[in-house]
Amino acid sequence: MSLKVGVIGTGMIGTDHIRRLTQVLSGVEVVAVSDIDAARAKAAAPAGAEVFDRATDLIHAAAVQAVVICSWGPAHEEQLLACIAAGKPVFCEKPLVTSEAGALRVMAAEVGFGRRLVQLGFMRRFDADYRRLKAVIDGGSLGAPLLYHSVHRNASVPEGLYTSDMPLNDTLVHDADIARWLLGDEIIGVEVRVPRRSSVGKDLRDPVVVLLHTASGALVDVEISVNIGYGYDIRGEVSCERGVAALPNRPATVISDQHGIRQAIPADWRERFIEAYDQEFREWIVAAGRGTATGPSSWDGYASTLAADAALRAAKSGLLEPVTMITKPPLYA
Amino acid sequence: MSLKVGVIGTGMIGTDHIRRLTQVLSGVEVVAVSDIDAARAKAAAPAGAEVFDRATDLIHAAAVQAVVICSWGPAHEEQLLACIAAGKPVFCEKPLVTSEAGALRVMAAEVGFGRRLVQLGFMRRFDADYRRLKAVIDGGSLGAPLLYHSVHRNASVPEGLYTSDMPLNDTLVHDADIARWLLGDEIIGVEVRVPRRSSVGKDLRDPVVVLLHTASGALVDVEISVNIGYGYDIRGEVSCERGVAALPNRPATVISDQHGIRQAIPADWRERFIEAYDQEFREWIVAAGRGTATGPSSWDGYASTLAADAALRAAKSGLLEPVTMITKPPLYA
Amino acid sequence: MSLKVGVIGTGMIGTDHIRRLTQVLSGVEVVAVSDIDAARAKAAAPAGAEVFDRATDLIHAAAVQAVVICSWGPAHEEQLLACIAAGKPVFCEKPLVTSEAGALRVMAAEVGFGRRLVQLGFMRRFDADYRRLKAVIDGGSLGAPLLYHSVHRNASVPEGLYTSDMPLNDTLVHDADIARWLLGDEIIGVEVRVPRRSSVGKDLRDPVVVLLHTASGALVDVEISVNIGYGYDIRGEVSCERGVAALPNRPATVISDQHGIRQAIPADWRERFIEAYDQEFREWIVAAGRGTATGPSSWDGYASTLAADAALRAAKSGLLEPVTMITKPPLYA
Amino acid sequence: MSLKVGVIGTGMIGTDHIRRLTQVLSGVEVVAVSDIDAARAKAAAPAGAEVFDRATDLIHAAAVQAVVICSWGPAHEEQLLACIAAGKPVFCEKPLVTSEAGALRVMAAEVGFGRRLVQLGFMRRFDADYRRLKAVIDGGSLGAPLLYHSVHRNASVPEGLYTSDMPLNDTLVHDADIARWLLGDEIIGVEVRVPRRSSVGKDLRDPVVVLLHTASGALVDVEISVNIGYGYDIRGEVSCERGVAALPNRPATVISDQHGIRQAIPADWRERFIEAYDQEFREWIVAAGRGTATGPSSWDGYASTLAADAALRAAKSGLLEPVTMITKPPLYA
Repeated sequence: MSLKVGVIGTGMIGTDHIRRLTQVLSGVEVVAVSDIDAARAKAAAPAGAEVFDRATDLIHAAAVQAVVICSWGPAHEEQLLACIAAGKPVFCEKPLVTSEAGALRVMAAEVGFGRRLVQLGFMRRFDADYRRLKAVIDGGSLGAPLLYHSVHRNASVPEGLYTSDMPLNDTLVHDADIARWLLGDEIIGVEVRVPRRSSVGKDLRDPVVVLLHTASGALVDVEISVNIGYGYDIRGEVSCERGVAALPNRPATVISDQHGIRQAIPADWRERFIEAYDQEFREWIVAAGRGTATGPSSWDGYASTLAADAALRAAKSGLLEPVTMITKPPLYA
Repeated sequence: MSLKVGVIGTGMIGTDHIRRLTQVLSGVEVVAVSDIDAARAKAAAPAGAEVFDRATDLIHAAAVQAVVICSWGPAHEEQLLACIAAGKPVFCEKPLVTSEAGALRVMAAEVGFGRRLVQLGFMRRFDADYRRLKAVIDGGSLGAPLLYHSVHRNASVPEGLYTSDMPLNDTLVHDADIARWLLGDEIIGVEVRVPRRSSVGKDLRDPVVVLLHTASGALVDVEISVNIGYGYDIRGEVSCERGVAALPNRPATVISDQHGIRQAIPADWRERFIEAYDQEFREWIVAAGRGTATGPSSWDGYASTLAADAALRAAKSGLLEPVTMITKPPLYA
Repeated sequence: MSLKVGVIGTGMIGTDHIRRLTQVLSGVEVVAVSDIDAARAKAAAPAGAEVFDRATDLIHAAAVQAVVICSWGPAHEEQLLACIAAGKPVFCEKPLVTSEAGALRVMAAEVGFGRRLVQLGFMRRFDADYRRLKAVIDGGSLGAPLLYHSVHRNASVPEGLYTSDMPLNDTLVHDADIARWLLGDEIIGVEVRVPRRSSVGKDLRDPVVVLLHTASGALVDVEISVNIGYGYDIRGEVSCERGVAALPNRPATVISDQHGIRQAIPADWRERFIEAYDQEFREWIVAAGRGTATGPSSWDGYASTLAADAALRAAKSGLLEPVTMITKPPLYA
Repeated sequence: MSLKVGVIGTGMIGTDHIRRLTQVLSGVEVVAVSDIDAARAKAAAPAGAEVFDRATDLIHAAAVQAVVICSWGPAHEEQLLACIAAGKPVFCEKPLVTSEAGALRVMAAEVGFGRRLVQLGFMRRFDADYRRLKAVIDGGSLGAPLLYHSVHRNASVPEGLYTSDMPLNDTLVHDADIARWLLGDEIIGVEVRVPRRSSVGKDLRDPVVVLLHTASGALVDVEISVNIGYGYDIRGEVSCERGVAALPNRPATVISDQHGIRQAIPADWRERFIEAYDQEFREWIVAAGRGTATGPSSWDGYASTLAADAALRAAKSGLLEPVTMITKPPLYA
């Protein structure tokens, strides 16, 4: 029996997920689609899928067993609460919500329901390279992790559309989440340091260096460079007590030619994480089929929201901005 | 609509393909299973699948739209011919058949049918590393390929069961096929050189070096080491007129510890090619759904059979053993 | 004509430099040796070299054309001033001196003399890997350098002898100096962040992360781990506006065995920088033969002293500690 | 006391060695120079060196303690015999001589003298990468070496001047010698295989694949490509019973830019082996100072001459051409 899914939001990422759910993955069927732009929803809907004008109608439709939210961030809270009220598993693209209060409301609803229903779209956790890295650290042969150096380089960002806050509230969340996950730790403070700006994308605060302080005392330093030109280059290295573990080069063909001995670098996040996106949904389908959720949770969304908020404050204050979280509900243990 | 598949042979590889077809891939359903060991077939059959005592009954069953052959080699010819007679697309694990005459009969039947129906299980062609390598060569920026160095190392082979002919008639076929495919070329002669034997697996002719001469004049040299202990290590490097392209290291975590800076090597072919197997079937499902086949063909099975036969002769004679093929039927162009 | 050299200090490093000057390098001769331990001096002296009880006598000896100072830090200032007063070129192991005031006095003397006489022992600047890295950055094809990530890992430090201040006033100076040199920049502020301590070497503040702020606005982050066990691992990566340049792996044999595909890591600084030490003296001999000095200068010693002092303050204060330098004398331009 | 050296032949390589002996290395002095072109000799002679019209006069000059032969190959035999007759240590650029008979005469003279006097210019044996590779193999942890894959790629060769025999009698000798040295083995047979020719350098037999059969049964396969354009790329990989050891990438800066993540490849043999040349002479100076020679010997020159001769025969015959050596004189054990 296939899982019957409704997709809310048919922009770029929603359309890509519809393709994934209908053409790539097994055990799943897209039976409903909704978008604020009805024509776009119609165009994106696979054959046989019902098109809804309103997201809440899609959520409540009897044929819909589970929901994929790809709408814009400010719409997430209402849609997540509706899914939880309806007891329907939901995959939600990041951000979970756009405020700390909203995250608390979503968690309260989910805790009230008594079972996890929300999987958040932190796809890096499903990437094979990151999973192997975590397995090495968790294996313990290198001792406790003490430092994590995370590098997040984008080839380019759209001038004008991508603002100086976005490295901190949009890009950083991936590094913050993967750091929490790799280290099995929580972020308790954030510092931001801003070097000389790159002459590419002149008005942009780029690059930035972020220091994340964790509860266990591990320190995470993050380089974010969003206009570096040469590609989408994601690096991570964990310094432990007795050794170091790092993400490998991507497995591109080793070419020897006039440019040296070389391997291509992914052009963008689509190329880099295409398999992670597939795997993210494979696991969601299994959990949703059982009426629940695994993987990145509302708690993780809450944590990353707090980290991003603290980063924005830290960029202004120049200080170590504390991150204060509520006690973790046992549901997210 | 899912493709309804019958699987013949439920040994290790057949069982694994059933898992793949039922749990990993979309658009496909295993509706029938058969094995010479009826109990084994029953144990392997997914819920709802019919179990057949005889492979031919499975092939002719109305519910079966396409067939997967995982029986032992000597049974392939009859089963392939039955599939072709029934006009049903068929995925056949290697070897295609066990004799040149058999390969000719299979091709004659398929040509008579007028459309490709057979996809042979050369999974390396679906491996992302090999595909990128081929794309670089085909891109032409390095000029024509002149030499291909192929390395095929097994951690170990079962003593007693794996004989001295097997590096040449079982292991070599992968290198021979991938060489033909990478270079877009045919093998016209084979030489074998046997160095001092490894003291591991004493009675075994191991390692061997094979030289494959191609129609275009490119030269392929293959190292086959089957008891090298440290892992399953597959390498390939193409020397072209103006540069070189090679398979990369596998993307394992880069660990720095008392053993140096290092990356793990796959333990065996399952680990190395797990994604290639999935992809192989993804593409088969699409083609079979259209009533035909793509990828490695009966012609490729014929070519690899001839290469292996020539290698066995060459190991005895010490000479360059020619490979003479029939004119290629347009069906396989 | 060989340069006639007197060596002050015949401890481990002094003895090694005597070996280097007598057995490895050309155009140089060790004609005099001095140590506070006369017996040790005698033992270390090459055949024909005169042994002096007092360093100043060695410096003033007519046969001595140039001096190598390998005494302990607190003795450097007096010896350097004596060399400068005598107009003799001098190679001085780090530290230049042990106080800012002392550095100013040395520079004042050298400026007064009117020609550079002092080369300081920052051997990394003579390492081929660092020189190639600098050439890439200076080449300009990657745009301006914005971030430099420097990693300084020691296999182990002697318990008890190596104190918590030493990562900052002894180890960090190498990273500080090489950062200044690579970026062509000055350090204007230092921050120190101390994560959870490694359980190896329990009482030690290890690891530490240091942020160096430069005059141009580039940001340098330094990881110092001094008990990491697996080896002496020195890394450096410069993020520029349009690309990244990094030190390569050391050229160790690539071994594939049960530990994976791997390369050995140097055991200690002697192994890592042995060629840099040779090169450092090759260039010193040439310059000293001309009565002057090139390479790392008194100014560089002054700068690194200030950086280390600021790091010690920053570790206590948790703040960004400014580094304020005098105007650079034209002699050091 | 410096070794007083006379240099015969002041072409490109002779001039470079004079630079090396006068400016780079210690313990040596060039006191005499000779060339068939007296003007060229005069121009190349360092200050104070005597210029000889005839090589034999230089060899017999009282001031000359040791000789460096950089004349053309056909002149080597007479000059070597004169050096041996005079009992003077001699460094001889390859080839030792140009015929098997000549090699036998040189060895007979040296054996008659009773002590090694000749060091042959196989600089690869002094390269740090090769030395580490040999140390790994000799260490024995990987078991016996069974296969050696040697890759010899030149960016380009001068059209017209470089003929089709030269990959086999000029280029191959380096691979043959290093194979013998790495494996501690002798070559007993040679095969040559010629694939399709590269369209670069049209009239040239390029690339070629050479198989060297050794006395122990190890097999060496050599790729020689002399017009590959992208650089001077020397590779070597030894497959042993329980693992593999290979030369590393050269330690060039790791650049990430629009061409990918990459390292430069040496442009030519000067860049690749510059340090090996220095080291080769360092060790020669020490041995010559003791009145003898170490490193590659007349025997090695004899062996490489035989291998090249067999390769030329094999290219014509297509057969395995045997290499038959005299019993090894104890002098060369």
